Amino acid sequence: MGDTATIGGASSLVREPVVDAFADLRAPRRADQARALGLYPYFKAMARHGGGTVVVDGEQYVLTGSNDYLGLTQDARVRQAARAAVDEFGMSASGSRFLTGTLELHETLEAELADFVGKESALVFSAGFLGTAAAVATLGGRHNVLYFDDQNHASMIDGARMAANRPRRFEHNDAADLERLLKEDEGLPGGRIVYTEGIFSMSGHIGAIPEVVEVARRYGARVVCDDAHATGVLGPRGEGSHAHFDLVDDVDVVAGTFSKALASVGGFLAGTADVIDYIRHTARPFIFSTALPAPNIAASLEALRIIRSEPEHREQMWSKVDFMRQNLLDLGFDLLGSDSPIVPVLVGDESTALQFWRGLWEEKVFATPALPPAVAQGRSLIRTSFNTAHRLEHLERVLEAFEKVGRALRVIS
Amino acid sequence: MGDTATIGGASSLVREPVVDAFADLRAPRRADQARALGLYPYFKAMARHGGGTVVVDGEQYVLTGSNDYLGLTQDARVRQAARAAVDEFGMSASGSRFLTGTLELHETLEAELADFVGKESALVFSAGFLGTAAAVATLGGRHNVLYFDDQNHASMIDGARMAANRPRRFEHNDAADLERLLKEDEGLPGGRIVYTEGIFSMSGHIGAIPEVVEVARRYGARVVCDDAHATGVLGPRGEGSHAHFDLVDDVDVVAGTFSKALASVGGFLAGTADVIDYIRHTARPFIFSTALPAPNIAASLEALRIIRSEPEHREQMWSKVDFMRQNLLDLGFDLLGSDSPIVPVLVGDESTALQFWRGLWEEKVFATPALPPAVAQGRSLIRTSFNTAHRLEHLERVLEAFEKVGRALRVIS
Repeated sequence: MGDTATIGGASSLVREPVVDAFADLRAPRRADQARALGLYPYFKAMARHGGGTVVVDGEQYVLTGSNDYLGLTQDARVRQAARAAVDEFGMSASGSRFLTGTLELHETLEAELADFVGKESALVFSAGFLGTAAAVATLGGRHNVLYFDDQNHASMIDGARMAANRPRRFEHNDAADLERLLKEDEGLPGGRIVYTEGIFSMSGHIGAIPEVVEVARRYGARVVCDDAHATGVLGPRGEGSHAHFDLVDDVDVVAGTFSKALASVGGFLAGTADVIDYIRHTARPFIFSTALPAPNIAASLEALRIIRSEPEHREQMWSKVDFMRQNLLDLGFDLLGSDSPIVPVLVGDESTALQFWRGLWEEKVFATPALPPAVAQGRSLIRTSFNTAHRLEHLERVLEAFEKVGRALRVIS
Repeated sequence: MGDTATIGGASSLVREPVVDAFADLRAPRRADQARALGLYPYFKAMARHGGGTVVVDGEQYVLTGSNDYLGLTQDARVRQAARAAVDEFGMSASGSRFLTGTLELHETLEAELADFVGKESALVFSAGFLGTAAAVATLGGRHNVLYFDDQNHASMIDGARMAANRPRRFEHNDAADLERLLKEDEGLPGGRIVYTEGIFSMSGHIGAIPEVVEVARRYGARVVCDDAHATGVLGPRGEGSHAHFDLVDDVDVVAGTFSKALASVGGFLAGTADVIDYIRHTARPFIFSTALPAPNIAASLEALRIIRSEPEHREQMWSKVDFMRQNLLDLGFDLLGSDSPIVPVLVGDESTALQFWRGLWEEKVFATPALPPAVAQGRSLIRTSFNTAHRLEHLERVLEAFEKVGRALRVIS
C-alpha cells in the first residue's frame, strides 16, 4: 500500500510515461526465423484424420506422435456412444459439476473408472491439465513437502505454483536421489508427497514405480502417479503403471487422462473416497470449471469398456511398437532407452532436428521435433509414437523415411 | 539443500515418525453435516436435460442457474454439426494443438471468433479456466503490475499464482478505487494490466467497462476483460461487453468461453495477432493440453454462426430475464442490483439459505445457494439465471416457489 496518494495526486498532470505491458509480447524470434526458412514444424492443420494417416494441404501423411495409442478414436462403438449422447443431451453441460452440470453419466464413468484402476473413488476433470494441477495444488498445498521427478509434466509444475509450493526435484527415475532429498528434509514440518509418472511423455520411459514406492514408504511419503500415457497401455488389462508393477495399493492417487488411449478428452484423479471427496469440495480447477459435455463422457465410458474387455487392441499396439523400436535401433538410431509407445529419436543439434523434420515431411511422414529448452542443448530429438491404427505400410514408410533422412544428415551411417 | 546427509544416514533406523500428508484430507465438515440433515444442495445428478427442465431421481425440476443463456444446447443445428464431426473425426484430437492436434476446424473457429469479437486473432483453449488463467499467467507474468476487480473469477486468481504475481484488488466495479491503486503504484517498474469481467458470475453485475477503460488509458494500463458470461448476451449482435459499450478497440484482450451461450465447452482469448501469437508459443496451459475434439469445435462454430445471424434468441432471453427480475423485485426480493441473466436472490444467513434451497427443491425448482466464504457472512443467496429455453410455465413455477418459500422463511413479507 504505502502513503503515496499525495505524490500521485500532485503529479497527475505530469505523469511519468509507463512501460506498455504488451511491448515485449512477440512470438519467440526463433519461431519467426523458422517460418521464414520453411522450417516451422508446429501447428500443422489437418483436414482429415484417418487413424494412422492425416491429410494436410491436400497431401496424405503418416502421422507419428499421436496419443491415440489403441486407435479407439476410430472405433465405431465409441462414435456411436458419442452420437447417442449428442442426441440425448447436446454438446454442453452448461454448468459446473458442483452446481448445475452433473449428469448421472459423469457418476457412471467415475464409478467404472475407480473400479478399473482399483481405487475407491474417481473424479473427472474437464481437462487433464486441470486434474494433475489439482493433484498438486490441492493435495500438496503449501504445507506439505513435495518431490517431483525431474521429467514431470508442466501441469504438475503449474499446480505447485498455484499452491505457492516449490517441489524438490529428484533425478529422473532415480529413487536413490529421491531418498537423498527425503533424508535431507527429515527435520522439516509437513507431510511428504512424491509425484511421478507411469510413462514419461518425452523420453518414453516407464516410471521406476517399484523403487520410488519403496523409498516413499520408508519415509512415510504418499505417492501420486500421473498415468496419462500409461492408462490403457500398461497393466494386465490396461489399468496403468501401478497394475503393471502389481503395486495397485501402493500408489495412493492415480491421475489420468481421457485424451490418449481413452479416445476422448478430459482428465481424472482416483484414490480413497475421503481424498476424492476432499478434492471434489476444494479443488478450484474442478469447482470453477464447466463439466465435460455428455458426448465426451459417453465416448470415454465406451472406450473404457472396450479396453477392459478387448485386450487385442493393446496387444496389437505393443507388437507395432516393438517392431518400430527394433527396426529403428537396427538402423543405428539412439532411442534414449524408451520402453513404451513413445519413441524419441535422438538427432543432435537444433538445426539438424529442424532439417530432419523437413526431410520427413517431404517423405510424407508427420513427426515433430523437441528442441531446447524442452530438451538439453545438442539433445534435440524427433518425438514419435506408434499405435494400433498404424498399418504395416505406414510403419514401413516411416522406417524408409528415417533411414533416408538419417543417412543424408549423417545422424546414422 | 544443506549438509544433513550424514545426520540422515546415522538416524536411518530410528527415523522420526512423519506427518501423513493426507491425514487432514476430509471433505469439509459442513458438507458432511449438510448431507446428514438432507440439506446438501450440490452435485445433484441429472438423468435428463430438456432445456428449461431436468430430471433428477425420476422427478422433473425447472432448472435455474444454467449457463445455456440462449438455449442453443437444444438447437438441432448445433447437434447436427457435432454429429457430423463425430462421424468425420471421432471424439479425440489425440494431441496438443502445438504438435499433432490442430485441425483446420480449429483455425476456422478461431478466424470467425476473432471477426465476431472485433479482434485480429483468437486462440481456443481446451477449458475456459485454462484460457483466463493463461491471460493472467502469460500476459501478466511476474514483472507487470496487475489490477483485479474484487469479484474476478477464480481462474484469474490461479493464473496469477502460476506467475507468482500478486495482483492488487480494487473494489468491485469501482474505477475510482482502481485509480487510487494505479496512482499509488506510479513509481513501480513494469507495465500495468487491469483485469475485469463483462458480467460477473455471482452478482450478475455488468462490468463498469467505460469507467475502467478510461482510468486504465490515463495510466497506460492494458485492459483484459473476461466475457465468459457476456459473449452472446451483451452487444448489438452478442459480441460481448466491449461492443455493448462501443469500446471494441479499447479492451485489449477479450477472454471467453464456449460453455455458456456458445453451447459447447472450452475457452478462448482474442486480441492483436502479435499478442495471440505470443500466447500460442508460450502459454503452458495451452501448449501442454490436448486440443479440443472436433465435435466440440463444430458445435461452438455452429452456435457462433446462429448467434451472429439470429438475434431472436438473445431478445427472447432478455425478455424472460426482465420478466423474472421485475416479478422477483415486486415480490420484495433483493437482487443485489443484477442487470444480467444472472439473478442472485439475497436470502441472509447460511442456515436460511440451505432451508430456502430445500424449500425450492420440494417445489421442484432446481436452484443452488452461494454460502460463505463465496459470499460475505449473512449475505448468502440463491443464485438463479434464466434463459431462452425457459417457457412461461417454468418461470411461473419458479416465481410461485420463491413466493411460497420466501414467505415461509420470512425473507419477504
